[in-house]
Amino acid sequence: MHDLVKLKAPSIARVGDSLALVSTPALLLDLDAFEFNLCNMAALAKKNGLALRPHAKAHKSSTISRAQIALGAVGICCQKLSEAYPFVRAGIDNIHISNEFVGADKVAMAVELAGLIQLSICVDHVAQVDAIGKAASAAGVTIIVMPEVDVGHGRCGVDSNEALAALIDRIAAYPGLQFGGLQAYNGGIQHLATWEQRRLEAARSADRTAQYIQFLEARGVLSPVVSGAGTGTVEFDVASGVYTEMQPGSYIFLDGHYGSNEWAGEYMPQHGLFILSTIMSTAKPHKAVCDVGLKGVAVDSGLPRVRAGDYEDKLRYVSANDEHGILQVAADDMRDHLGNRVMLVPGHCDPTCNLHDQFICFRGDVVEAIWEIDARGLSH
Amino acid sequence: MHDLVKLKAPSIARVGDSLALVSTPALLLDLDAFEFNLCNMAALAKKNGLALRPHAKAHKSSTISRAQIALGAVGICCQKLSEAYPFVRAGIDNIHISNEFVGADKVAMAVELAGLIQLSICVDHVAQVDAIGKAASAAGVTIIVMPEVDVGHGRCGVDSNEALAALIDRIAAYPGLQFGGLQAYNGGIQHLATWEQRRLEAARSADRTAQYIQFLEARGVLSPVVSGAGTGTVEFDVASGVYTEMQPGSYIFLDGHYGSNEWAGEYMPQHGLFILSTIMSTAKPHKAVCDVGLKGVAVDSGLPRVRAGDYEDKLRYVSANDEHGILQVAADDMRDHLGNRVMLVPGHCDPTCNLHDQFICFRGDVVEAIWEIDARGLSH
Repeated sequence: MHDLVKLKAPSIARVGDSLALVSTPALLLDLDAFEFNLCNMAALAKKNGLALRPHAKAHKSSTISRAQIALGAVGICCQKLSEAYPFVRAGIDNIHISNEFVGADKVAMAVELAGLIQLSICVDHVAQVDAIGKAASAAGVTIIVMPEVDVGHGRCGVDSNEALAALIDRIAAYPGLQFGGLQAYNGGIQHLATWEQRRLEAARSADRTAQYIQFLEARGVLSPVVSGAGTGTVEFDVASGVYTEMQPGSYIFLDGHYGSNEWAGEYMPQHGLFILSTIMSTAKPHKAVCDVGLKGVAVDSGLPRVRAGDYEDKLRYVSANDEHGILQVAADDMRDHLGNRVMLVPGHCDPTCNLHDQFICFRGDVVEAIWEIDARGLSH
Repeated sequence: MHDLVKLKAPSIARVGDSLALVSTPALLLDLDAFEFNLCNMAALAKKNGLALRPHAKAHKSSTISRAQIALGAVGICCQKLSEAYPFVRAGIDNIHISNEFVGADKVAMAVELAGLIQLSICVDHVAQVDAIGKAASAAGVTIIVMPEVDVGHGRCGVDSNEALAALIDRIAAYPGLQFGGLQAYNGGIQHLATWEQRRLEAARSADRTAQYIQFLEARGVLSPVVSGAGTGTVEFDVASGVYTEMQPGSYIFLDGHYGSNEWAGEYMPQHGLFILSTIMSTAKPHKAVCDVGLKGVAVDSGLPRVRAGDYEDKLRYVSANDEHGILQVAADDMRDHLGNRVMLVPGHCDPTCNLHDQFICFRGDVVEAIWEIDARGLSH
């Protein structure tokens, strides 16, 4: 009698196997490209004298964060408080929550985390400061607070000197809070198509950031940290002289959306993230169906594309159902291609990684490591 | 000293709590609507004398499948072999994989599952039959094979009598395989906007299905099961006299995409699936930012909409970032609304459920149960 309680689907890969033996769909990480991207960004930070605090929301894996810290990163960013827990469990002791939060449940998480690590958070409303200030002060912990200033994104963050001053004054009212500087990230310009557009808009965001810094200095308030910069503008942001810290995330992967940016400067990441798929139906002419659909790849920033070098000229991913990807075929008949593998470049890395439980890390044709995506699904 | 090894993010809800205490983002299931939908479909199947085999890819939760079986369902559908494992572990002993698969890893899963439960699978290529036939015969298990016929979707499935006959002949060549009937599902017509369009296209698909059945009968082959019908066409399909079994999935939830269908007949499901969000930034006029973005809700079939009765007239969800939802505000100033809750109706239930680990099940204002989404992420 089979012991059903222990029944489990087989794992999708084993270290040492060739890629041909990996079950699909699988989230693949090309270690050569990953390490190139990792070192390149670490060098860029070092050369320009900025702290590197990579964003963990892109990969949600404490193994990757530890590799970043081993190369000199000062800590990491998370976007949500619950997301921070697996990283703290893995020994990472310096986390910035680059986002606002509201609610007693969230405040309780912040207080718990601040008792374990150096925690900084963002605010853009005095009510957020009051909630976290009362709780931190009562618990006897210190939480570093970095008001978010809107430098062009138009999403979160205050957009006036008066609103910023109100936050600074309120932070000073609580013994459990410490002003840490400014969060000044413009997510809206990271994907501007041309290098020149990004350069111009990054300069505009840096100017706005500088104005807030100067406004505070005139009030006698120094900003120990000014944190900003994403993968698309980091090469300009580091040269601006405005930021002390950069927080890129996607640079380790270069997804399809970032890959379609024009990269004209010295800094240029490589594609390292792929979805391995299998052609599982070829019943129609001019069509092949693969096993990667909406549950294997995020499509918010465009459909995945077929990796250069494989079926690039023959197949185009034209439609995603839940568990099917429809591939348009240049050749008439794909019947003999049943079971063949197709490597896909995902449009958007962050929500794609959040669909999977593991990175299957390969070098050449061999699975070298399997890394857990231990913060997957932690969004509260 | 805190024991970091055991550190874990707090759970998002506790049974007995009011909804106001649930951490957001949370995937909510309204039990009144869910039970209404569950009973309605069971009654429709019973009244028309069809077997009900609900699709588990919509919810990926063995608790929900067991509720469906308790109300008379003969078994369930899964879309992938790995997806079936948690359901088998939970005691479900009759599963149909309503999809093709290729590869030794997949064949091994099918053989393992067929040793534990009654398993049926789909094929549309003789190479699939050969692979599974050899393995099942060697292992001494029986796998029921249902060739998929394309009845209008244009995705998988054979589209000629000759191709169907070739599959039937090949199935007969293997002692480990048993012909089980036909898979005849048209996913492409489930979301046609008007009731009349769906009625006409469902009739056309039923005619195509009937032609395949008659072709096989003329060759002396009877189809014990003819499986089809989705949430959007089930009311027509059950009356067609062609299908013996229906396989709807989304009917238990009614997502936004299905909700925008015109429902003019007697059969009409209710909205039961929501994402609970919190307004976490109100720094801009005419804008509010909530904490549900691409990692909390799938946007492939449209952005989520604000549930009727709450902020319906005041707020519109206009853009999704990874962890932010941008709400356009009719009123000028939302500053006093910081921390308020907004219930969202997801556009597409299947990939939305696949983002979450639990259904927070509520009745009225109280959390009544928490159900694990135990097949989440199992796509291979």
